[in-house]
Amino acid sequence: MKTAILTIGTEILFGQIVNTNAAYLSSELQNLGYDVMYHYTVGDNPKRLKETLEHAFRDCDLIITTGGLGPTQDDLTKETIAEYFGDKVEERPECMKYLIETYQKRGYNLTPNNLKQAYMPTTAEVLFNDAGTAPGFMMSQKGKMIMSLPGPPREVKNMFEKEVKPRLEKMQDSVIYYKLIRTFEYGESLMETDLLPLINGQTDPTIATYAKEGECYLRVASKRPTKEEAIKAVDDMIVKIDELIGQHIYSHDNEDLVEVVGKLLINKHITISSAESCTAGLFAATLGNISGISSVLEKGIVTYTEKAKMEELGVKKETLEQFSAVSEQTALEMVQGLRKKSGSDFCISVTGYSEPGTGTEKDPAGTCYIGVSYAGREYVVRSSRRSVNRNWNRNYAVLKMLYEVYKNIK
Amino acid sequence: MKTAILTIGTEILFGQIVNTNAAYLSSELQNLGYDVMYHYTVGDNPKRLKETLEHAFRDCDLIITTGGLGPTQDDLTKETIAEYFGDKVEERPECMKYLIETYQKRGYNLTPNNLKQAYMPTTAEVLFNDAGTAPGFMMSQKGKMIMSLPGPPREVKNMFEKEVKPRLEKMQDSVIYYKLIRTFEYGESLMETDLLPLINGQTDPTIATYAKEGECYLRVASKRPTKEEAIKAVDDMIVKIDELIGQHIYSHDNEDLVEVVGKLLINKHITISSAESCTAGLFAATLGNISGISSVLEKGIVTYTEKAKMEELGVKKETLEQFSAVSEQTALEMVQGLRKKSGSDFCISVTGYSEPGTGTEKDPAGTCYIGVSYAGREYVVRSSRRSVNRNWNRNYAVLKMLYEVYKNIK
Repeated sequence: MKTAILTIGTEILFGQIVNTNAAYLSSELQNLGYDVMYHYTVGDNPKRLKETLEHAFRDCDLIITTGGLGPTQDDLTKETIAEYFGDKVEERPECMKYLIETYQKRGYNLTPNNLKQAYMPTTAEVLFNDAGTAPGFMMSQKGKMIMSLPGPPREVKNMFEKEVKPRLEKMQDSVIYYKLIRTFEYGESLMETDLLPLINGQTDPTIATYAKEGECYLRVASKRPTKEEAIKAVDDMIVKIDELIGQHIYSHDNEDLVEVVGKLLINKHITISSAESCTAGLFAATLGNISGISSVLEKGIVTYTEKAKMEELGVKKETLEQFSAVSEQTALEMVQGLRKKSGSDFCISVTGYSEPGTGTEKDPAGTCYIGVSYAGREYVVRSSRRSVNRNWNRNYAVLKMLYEVYKNIK
Repeated sequence: MKTAILTIGTEILFGQIVNTNAAYLSSELQNLGYDVMYHYTVGDNPKRLKETLEHAFRDCDLIITTGGLGPTQDDLTKETIAEYFGDKVEERPECMKYLIETYQKRGYNLTPNNLKQAYMPTTAEVLFNDAGTAPGFMMSQKGKMIMSLPGPPREVKNMFEKEVKPRLEKMQDSVIYYKLIRTFEYGESLMETDLLPLINGQTDPTIATYAKEGECYLRVASKRPTKEEAIKAVDDMIVKIDELIGQHIYSHDNEDLVEVVGKLLINKHITISSAESCTAGLFAATLGNISGISSVLEKGIVTYTEKAKMEELGVKKETLEQFSAVSEQTALEMVQGLRKKSGSDFCISVTGYSEPGTGTEKDPAGTCYIGVSYAGREYVVRSSRRSVNRNWNRNYAVLKMLYEVYKNIK
């Protein structure tokens, strides 16, 4: 069923809050096999709200709204939707009862404007809200249906699970299932080209590529009468995708690189230490966000200055003088020094230029050298990527380090 | 000017990503005095995109779009907008030049579909994108204007600042000027109460308080015929605000705490080293993002395990056994050990519980001990804040550390 999500609230239009309701509802609706065609956001304005309902109903048969059900004067969603369907609002006894009980239970003062929350369009079915005071409702006319939920995300989630989802499931005759596949160091155009044999003429499962924060994603989705059929269709397609581009894939289930690497380290009991220059601790800090990493993350040495590199890691003065702090030789001595002082299974070092405009002709900003010492091997890789800004360059260096760990321990 | 934001992308309708572009653009537009009336999201579908343009232009004179400018077959924003304005796309030489140079510089393969990015509506003005490969554009007809930006938030922000904002400022007949004042460890209600004498009856400049990521902000804004008048009105008001709550303010110009601290360290030539446990390098990494910090940031020692704390910082076995790794005593020995090995002017240590559910009754998750050694003083502060999640708890510990540095060196 074609669906639109209409979020109502001035605070969204002001950019004061990010619209997480739209993302949450979209994801849930997709999973139930509803096609979300539009998101709309309007303020608490009856005219614009009505025009938006009209626009959405030209294409869609279901609109889910959030917001504007509260007790204040500018909360006009119910009145406006009632009017749109040629209805009006009236006091609903079961809502009034719930409202009075809830206010008493919470020890709140029931002011006259609060009573507004117990009014409903006369032909509406009430959607109860046991996480808040404003109930929602659903109503339909000539095959067009509206479900209205309150604004707070916690209440939206609670009501969706308990009141909306069961109704939507009953209305569906198919299910959508999808997986997000993630790759690193693989361009979107190249990925699309490599997958053309699968993409061309493909209707179900659908395969869509997209780029996000330096990575490339692949979404494989299937819409079938049952969940089992949809899962099978997606999994069968993923086997074919693996044959074509498997070597670029690090997650078949939308995991971040650091999650994948962190879990591998923990599950395989591989201890790790790092020696960082340009990233200044960001590699260790990023790994540090994985629950349970304390069983394998041992030492992190941040050596921002040449003095620190010599004192903490035993990098030789001559190496720094002859090759500079950003060089293959320095990265190698850093990781060798780290191995001596940590004894961790996996030792990794990094030195590079993060600040745009720094670096040399050979090694401009965005270049780093990554030293690896693992399983008896020692080597240095050079990474040079277009410099964006200091933060991005450092983040990318950390991703490169994580990917280097990944390739060794996968 | 009435404005609509139209974000284009199936991944938003699928709920795969939260629409931060809409929030960012809304906030920026509000600050420039543009009224955002609608948010719309549609997929890469020419028919729905055109219908949405029609709907938005009924009320609005400016539409800002994001997304759909990339190289893949389903990126159809340019073609659709051109058609909407009765135009068509053609190769734009300056875009082709940029594209080829950029791909060469990055060492990427320029596949045929990439060339699409160098096509533009014939009557469009190009909005350059030096943070990505897909340029944007603006075009207008009969008082209706569209500005189109690519989808990745980083590119949107970069282009908005460099290409869009200057154009929007020129189009306004009054100027909004504002400053964002930032405080730490100061509640929003308390701030509002303290400022009531200024807030009451105030129409211009307006004063608005809001809480964001654990901090409290104050927005002081004035809308005047000229920028000079607006600046003067805001600055005069800030003098009065300083008299009331000056001791809580660490930035009058929306600087992050780390920027303020980093600049103070650099300008006063105060060298710093850190010894981190629960934050695993995040303090050093955060400071490491400040340009020029290499002149003062010396060593960072990440000691995640007890063994590392003993080996790298000389924390005594007995201290760990008697008081545990998360204690005042351990934080103190960490910073003392750091002082010995670094000799930096400012030494700071941290040890705490980040993972929800860990910790003790006395020191639950969200608690950390921060050791400071500076200017002949040595002390430990305990911070305990309601645990949110691992990431948040670690970020908050870093903010506390930065604020501790700030109080000592401001």
